[in-house]
Amino acid sequence: MSYNAAKDEAGQRIRDAKERAGLTWSQIAEAIDQPREWTISALLGMHPVPEAAATTVGEMLGLDDDTIRALQRQPYRPGLGELANDPTIYRFTEAIAVYGAAIKEIIHEDFGDGIMSAIDFDVRVTRREHPKGDRIVITFDGKYLTYPPRD
Amino acid sequence: MSYNAAKDEAGQRIRDAKERAGLTWSQIAEAIDQPREWTISALLGMHPVPEAAATTVGEMLGLDDDTIRALQRQPYRPGLGELANDPTIYRFTEAIAVYGAAIKEIIHEDFGDGIMSAIDFDVRVTRREHPKGDRIVITFDGKYLTYPPRD
Amino acid sequence: MSYNAAKDEAGQRIRDAKERAGLTWSQIAEAIDQPREWTISALLGMHPVPEAAATTVGEMLGLDDDTIRALQRQPYRPGLGELANDPTIYRFTEAIAVYGAAIKEIIHEDFGDGIMSAIDFDVRVTRREHPKGDRIVITFDGKYLTYPPRD
Amino acid sequence: MSYNAAKDEAGQRIRDAKERAGLTWSQIAEAIDQPREWTISALLGMHPVPEAAATTVGEMLGLDDDTIRALQRQPYRPGLGELANDPTIYRFTEAIAVYGAAIKEIIHEDFGDGIMSAIDFDVRVTRREHPKGDRIVITFDGKYLTYPPRD
Amino acid sequence: MSYNAAKDEAGQRIRDAKERAGLTWSQIAEAIDQPREWTISALLGMHPVPEAAATTVGEMLGLDDDTIRALQRQPYRPGLGELANDPTIYRFTEAIAVYGAAIKEIIHEDFGDGIMSAIDFDVRVTRREHPKGDRIVITFDGKYLTYPPRD
Amino acid sequence: MSYNAAKDEAGQRIRDAKERAGLTWSQIAEAIDQPREWTISALLGMHPVPEAAATTVGEMLGLDDDTIRALQRQPYRPGLGELANDPTIYRFTEAIAVYGAAIKEIIHEDFGDGIMSAIDFDVRVTRREHPKGDRIVITFDGKYLTYPPRD
Amino acid sequence: MSYNAAKDEAGQRIRDAKERAGLTWSQIAEAIDQPREWTISALLGMHPVPEAAATTVGEMLGLDDDTIRALQRQPYRPGLGELANDPTIYRFTEAIAVYGAAIKEIIHEDFGDGIMSAIDFDVRVTRREHPKGDRIVITFDGKYLTYPPRD
Amino acid sequence: MSYNAAKDEAGQRIRDAKERAGLTWSQIAEAIDQPREWTISALLGMHPVPEAAATTVGEMLGLDDDTIRALQRQPYRPGLGELANDPTIYRFTEAIAVYGAAIKEIIHEDFGDGIMSAIDFDVRVTRREHPKGDRIVITFDGKYLTYPPRD
Amino acid sequence: MSYNAAKDEAGQRIRDAKERAGLTWSQIAEAIDQPREWTISALLGMHPVPEAAATTVGEMLGLDDDTIRALQRQPYRPGLGELANDPTIYRFTEAIAVYGAAIKEIIHEDFGDGIMSAIDFDVRVTRREHPKGDRIVITFDGKYLTYPPRD
Amino acid sequence: MSYNAAKDEAGQRIRDAKERAGLTWSQIAEAIDQPREWTISALLGMHPVPEAAATTVGEMLGLDDDTIRALQRQPYRPGLGELANDPTIYRFTEAIAVYGAAIKEIIHEDFGDGIMSAIDFDVRVTRREHPKGDRIVITFDGKYLTYPPRD
Repeated sequence: MSYNAAKDEAGQRIRDAKERAGLTWSQIAEAIDQPREWTISALLGMHPVPEAAATTVGEMLGLDDDTIRALQRQPYRPGLGELANDPTIYRFTEAIAVYGAAIKEIIHEDFGDGIMSAIDFDVRVTRREHPKGDRIVITFDGKYLTYPPRD
Repeated sequence: MSYNAAKDEAGQRIRDAKERAGLTWSQIAEAIDQPREWTISALLGMHPVPEAAATTVGEMLGLDDDTIRALQRQPYRPGLGELANDPTIYRFTEAIAVYGAAIKEIIHEDFGDGIMSAIDFDVRVTRREHPKGDRIVITFDGKYLTYPPRD
Repeated sequence: MSYNAAKDEAGQRIRDAKERAGLTWSQIAEAIDQPREWTISALLGMHPVPEAAATTVGEMLGLDDDTIRALQRQPYRPGLGELANDPTIYRFTEAIAVYGAAIKEIIHEDFGDGIMSAIDFDVRVTRREHPKGDRIVITFDGKYLTYPPRD
Repeated sequence: MSYNAAKDEAGQRIRDAKERAGLTWSQIAEAIDQPREWTISALLGMHPVPEAAATTVGEMLGLDDDTIRALQRQPYRPGLGELANDPTIYRFTEAIAVYGAAIKEIIHEDFGDGIMSAIDFDVRVTRREHPKGDRIVITFDGKYLTYPPRD
Repeated sequence: MSYNAAKDEAGQRIRDAKERAGLTWSQIAEAIDQPREWTISALLGMHPVPEAAATTVGEMLGLDDDTIRALQRQPYRPGLGELANDPTIYRFTEAIAVYGAAIKEIIHEDFGDGIMSAIDFDVRVTRREHPKGDRIVITFDGKYLTYPPRD
Repeated sequence: MSYNAAKDEAGQRIRDAKERAGLTWSQIAEAIDQPREWTISALLGMHPVPEAAATTVGEMLGLDDDTIRALQRQPYRPGLGELANDPTIYRFTEAIAVYGAAIKEIIHEDFGDGIMSAIDFDVRVTRREHPKGDRIVITFDGKYLTYPPRD
Repeated sequence: MSYNAAKDEAGQRIRDAKERAGLTWSQIAEAIDQPREWTISALLGMHPVPEAAATTVGEMLGLDDDTIRALQRQPYRPGLGELANDPTIYRFTEAIAVYGAAIKEIIHEDFGDGIMSAIDFDVRVTRREHPKGDRIVITFDGKYLTYPPRD
Repeated sequence: MSYNAAKDEAGQRIRDAKERAGLTWSQIAEAIDQPREWTISALLGMHPVPEAAATTVGEMLGLDDDTIRALQRQPYRPGLGELANDPTIYRFTEAIAVYGAAIKEIIHEDFGDGIMSAIDFDVRVTRREHPKGDRIVITFDGKYLTYPPRD
Repeated sequence: MSYNAAKDEAGQRIRDAKERAGLTWSQIAEAIDQPREWTISALLGMHPVPEAAATTVGEMLGLDDDTIRALQRQPYRPGLGELANDPTIYRFTEAIAVYGAAIKEIIHEDFGDGIMSAIDFDVRVTRREHPKGDRIVITFDGKYLTYPPRD
Repeated sequence: MSYNAAKDEAGQRIRDAKERAGLTWSQIAEAIDQPREWTISALLGMHPVPEAAATTVGEMLGLDDDTIRALQRQPYRPGLGELANDPTIYRFTEAIAVYGAAIKEIIHEDFGDGIMSAIDFDVRVTRREHPKGDRIVITFDGKYLTYPPRD
């Protein structure tokens, strides 16, 4: 079964409608008073959208009821799939391949045997100006979760 | 051919020697005056270590000449390999699966058609105290690279 | 690099020594006063073993110092690897394939948009007597983690 | 051939109809007097639904005859497929990677050379209240099956 | 970890010793009074060998104590691995690809929703003489296991 | 290109029509005077069906001319595909993983360097009554094919 | 979600329209005053096409508004996918397998620890006449990017 | 069998000896009067080295007779293997994913239905100075091979 | 993008039309005066069909203009895909697995370091009568291509 | 278990010894009076070598008794493995991808529903002189095997 089909289809319609309406993600995020990172992710099918926000977006973009209802559904979140080799996305995988073990060793040294949560987690994307060319700064901020300590 | 064999073996010896010597990565990084993130990554075989730093680490950890020379070699950097399913590492892949398209859309909206470099790139790992449990904050900071614009 | 090599080798030595000594996992777990589930998992390389417990096991099984030190190291936890098709292990994958979506829907219905933690997590294996043949009862007990709610 | 197509389509229709009708899985399970775990799994295409139950569900959700008949068909059960990387589902795979060998060793120690059946098998999902955050408790209960003993 | 390493090594030694001794599997199976199918499978590392049988084989083939003890260990059974494309083995996979759905439909029709156990299971290989060329007849004989019926 | 598309579609229509008509595979097999194993396999797209048999089945199930013609086409036979993880089918793969090397060794010992044909091959599925639960007995019967001997 | 669906569909329409119109890529590239390499790549969905160029192409080929708008969208760039085994494409993969390590060693020797950018990058395809058969000369021209030096 | 083992081992020895001797690939290539691209590729095991050149390199680097003989053997050339995700190498795969179809369309337009040979083929790596940062220019030069024309 | 979609669809239509018309591939090949091997391959989408031949086939089989034009397009040739496990096709892969290294060694011994071209290449399929059962004889005839010699 | 390890090792020793002795495969094949194709394949571990031939080769190449005995063992034949991407071997896979369906259709048309055996099978490699460059001609000659006809 294609478990996330309804949300995927809603995401496609939103991208089409946003383009036709000439709106930016920033404008949509502002309208529902949420960070842009979460807004895009949710509208593309990765999070359930609360009813009020779904209705607001529906009105902004002229979406039908099925689409508005699909936005509110709980998601089935897939793996990277076809995104895996997009150059923008792949660079993250590459960076983790190069620096992942170092990050893990630092977590061990500073926190202990555990991980950064990917659920109690936030991501922020910002621009940092730089004389040699501006930089993209992406911050992952997740709760430290420890394997139950046994001492 | 196992292209990175000499650096991999050096990395294993360093982890063993560090453990026996009771040293932390922080102490080693301080001794060579480099950030801990880069230091660990380089000593595990992911970067060439400048001669002076390689010698310093060699003395600190009692490494033989072959190991010190291997540290200075140019690396062949592998993919995630056996790290891919370690829970600490996997959470990054999962976060990219969930938020990657949103990050990409924001780069499109704020910068244009391009990527965050994984080469002109730095990573920092910090601890953020929080009443509900401290958090791991990981910052990816890479130069924006644009596909040659055609307007 | 084979990141978990030292702990893997320690695990092999422990299985060999346990067999030669004619000990059971129950006896070893009792000696370090930990549940058997955690004890086996840790001694096979999946968890760091506290120093006191590592020493106790080392004495019971006649392990050398390198092995005892390896037990205390932080682990790199691999994926299923060669275990994936062992019939005992495969049945879990099959059960998740058959019942996984149902479990997810119940979590959605009873808790909301979130997951069962695999870190703040315990597993217990027990025997349940049954007239038509005894049963294995395995309990997964993990903290509910919610995606940050946005209402 | 897409062997389970008819049941998959029935599952999609049921999820849509349930959402439009504002029903919960608990209400549906109660109506057919079956546990919720089995009910969801069966309605999503993983089990044959007895005729009486299929008819009851059909009336509750306003399903057409083809859908009601598809529910009663014998299933072709797929592997994890697109579910494999959903965070809720993936945590089970990760837990088995970490604790699977321990579970297997305990089965060996307490039962002998055999497995937990995934056919003569039941799963239950419950909530356990806990001061530090409620927990999800999932119980797998399967008959012990022994490889034919040869002594 | 290579969980089945000790039994694999025992299997290699047995094949070498059997060849040097000029013995057949039939002779070995007869010596321990077990069917040849089980005997070979067990000696190659797929089953635990009871102590008496392991000792008998050890004496016949001049095996050392470690090998004899390894034979008695519980196995970790791998997937097809390198056997998958051996022409003799591949024909089974091909036959299941061609006739598997038919077998499944017959089980549905004659037994119900269930499977043939691969645990409570026996295999026999015999020769059937035939004027156009003798035939290999392989019989799989496994207990029918039913998914818990819900009527 | 989807080489077997026409036969796959015919197979889907036959399964739907058979269900609506309330017929069993046994009744269909009897009508065309062929074993049930071959009949199902052929009607699901794995063999060409002779014209007379295709016509008979077409009349029994009310199939259109395109479907009847598709049944007679030569097949492109796929690999296991989505069947690979169905529990009923997977048990065969598992059994071959466990007993495949033993079967191969017996073929070597009794016949020589060769294989059991999967083309000049028949399969039969029967029920064997047993006090502890009836058993499924599946027989593979294939011609022995020898690699050209070189003595 | 099929992120690049709109651009893929536009690409299909352009190939069909170009064929019906009897136009060459050279003519289209000339009309928008861009190199042929970029033009084809962009029209097949790999780059955003500036509005003026998209309109020109739309008029040349009689494309509808949706298609013209899709051309201007930011792309999700996939991996090789079904192209991977096309003989023309595969030869590049093969050449990199044979000469890739040599190219990398030369970059190390002449530039240092870094890469050739695939973003600040141009490709040119030319014909070189040769008495023994003309040759295809393909030039990759990318900016050298260095890992941040640490001396 | 590891078909290229002897040449791989020779390649490892050459890299170690070159490093200890403080030689560059340029110096070695000059000594045998061959282009650096071919020289490195051949010494790392991808081409047979003529006897005179192998002897010269052997003397320069102090290689033993087995190594010198291995250099002259015909190679078994592997796929990308562990090189596939090295950032330097991966950029080529990415560039082909982005520009491959365009290259293929140009070959069709300018030459016909055929390919660029990867056998009758040369690669050159050069540096191009550039005010915004020097560039790596890689030229692939292969004979055009046509599928036999049928007009 | 599905690059070969138009030719794949043409191939499907040709197979259907040929079947309805009761024509053989031999008759079609004769009508366009080409070998049957090339004719089938081209009509199934693997080669561009010259205009005259495409028109002839179009008239013989009653194809529409889009199909006739698609036949003339340059192909994107895929890998084995779903053909890989068809028993007829798989036997070739198996034969290459068993005899491939021998073929390569003979090419080395008789020609030098090079390959048999798969582009300047012809295949012929013939029947050889034989008292123990007729044989299929398939001849691959390709130009020898040498890696540029360096002596 | 590495089932073919003994024969693989024998193959490596034979290649080394042949090179040191300056012998060709033709000379070895002549000595044992077998075709070169079979001889190489068998000596590299793909076939059992009769005792007399194994002894002859052993004397010619100075092999030890273990190697001579290993040559006589029944083989476990692997898949293509690391050979899959060698350019010489890959061209066969590519040719089958391009012409495989055509070969299959011709077998259907001339023989019926069946395959070319890869067991009762011979391969021959010859050189065909040609003014535009000599050609490699490879002939596969296998018995036609029919699926049991049902008319």
